[in-house]
Amino acid sequence: MPSAFPPALERLIKNLSRLPGIGEKTATRLALHILRWPKELAGELADSINVLHDRIRLCSSCFTFSEQNPCPVCADPKRDTSTICVVEEPGDLLAMEKTGVFRGVYHVLHGVISPMDGIGPEQLKINELLARIDPASKNEIKEIIIATSSTAAGEATAAYLSELLRQSGVTASRIACGIPVGMDLKYADRMTLQRAIEARTSCSNLE
Amino acid sequence: MPSAFPPALERLIKNLSRLPGIGEKTATRLALHILRWPKELAGELADSINVLHDRIRLCSSCFTFSEQNPCPVCADPKRDTSTICVVEEPGDLLAMEKTGVFRGVYHVLHGVISPMDGIGPEQLKINELLARIDPASKNEIKEIIIATSSTAAGEATAAYLSELLRQSGVTASRIACGIPVGMDLKYADRMTLQRAIEARTSCSNLE
Repeated sequence: MPSAFPPALERLIKNLSRLPGIGEKTATRLALHILRWPKELAGELADSINVLHDRIRLCSSCFTFSEQNPCPVCADPKRDTSTICVVEEPGDLLAMEKTGVFRGVYHVLHGVISPMDGIGPEQLKINELLARIDPASKNEIKEIIIATSSTAAGEATAAYLSELLRQSGVTASRIACGIPVGMDLKYADRMTLQRAIEARTSCSNLE
Repeated sequence: MPSAFPPALERLIKNLSRLPGIGEKTATRLALHILRWPKELAGELADSINVLHDRIRLCSSCFTFSEQNPCPVCADPKRDTSTICVVEEPGDLLAMEKTGVFRGVYHVLHGVISPMDGIGPEQLKINELLARIDPASKNEIKEIIIATSSTAAGEATAAYLSELLRQSGVTASRIACGIPVGMDLKYADRMTLQRAIEARTSCSNLE
């Protein structure tokens, strides 16, 4: 039986299937859609993938993805460089920046400690974080906010980091865990409720 | 506030968001994943998108996507050219070919009649189908199997086609509609059950 799809289409489907969460059926749907696009639009998508690796580097200070070095956040003189928010991925930095509430700088770990996946502290940008807080670096660091995810691996990484930072004598904090704003209590899972109770704050703080 | 993502990344996210079913969050996840790929893999994806429009044409006989004209199915001397299966999209042809049960040839409509979307019969490859069955074309057509989807628009298109074909004196049939194989009856929807009852076959056929 001859293959029903032409080789150029099969090739694109195979390449799209390599993306996370894209199975063969979705890849087929996307490839057929791209084929229906005007040629210019497909060319624009291809070009934007092509230039990505050439344009984007890691910021040598916070290790986020950036076209400039240092990145726009690290280069901004209005940011408070004495407070470092430690996140797992550049995407977390974006989520934080979109809120506009944090005026310090970041440090991107590029992952979490996960022995099952063979990822130990040495695979992450942890030594680079220790270099940033080293007194010899002349960076005056007041606080490190550990903002890894509230997953098992994120919590383990946070615990590991807080112990390291304690030894270094730097003030470390962990972002709060509790009921998301707007969530009905009855839909919260057991672990979240337990954490919300444990981390309760005095009502006098609300006044 | 400076944009947290570099322009090259924002551009790829915007382009990926144009794909069906891909929102901004998914596009961001995919773009960050492509950035973590080896450069060669990203280049391969970009190249496969780039060559797509240059390589792929419509078969001048059945109008499926193909790199050759006629397409491999139409060019195959072992296929029965007297039976034409009419499908909506090249993807439907692929699904049919994967089963290997149909040995005739195809005709791809490239859509269904949908007045709400401004798609009438003249936007589809219906005149081309009529040209194929025209006695003057010397194609000896025994049967047209209408295999459009069992959606409202698919059924309307099938009804329109069967009336056209009746006027032309060509034998037309419609693929069967009923309970999918392996499906528990109690999970079938009302319309499917109704169609399955209406299209029941005599048990003597099962012997």
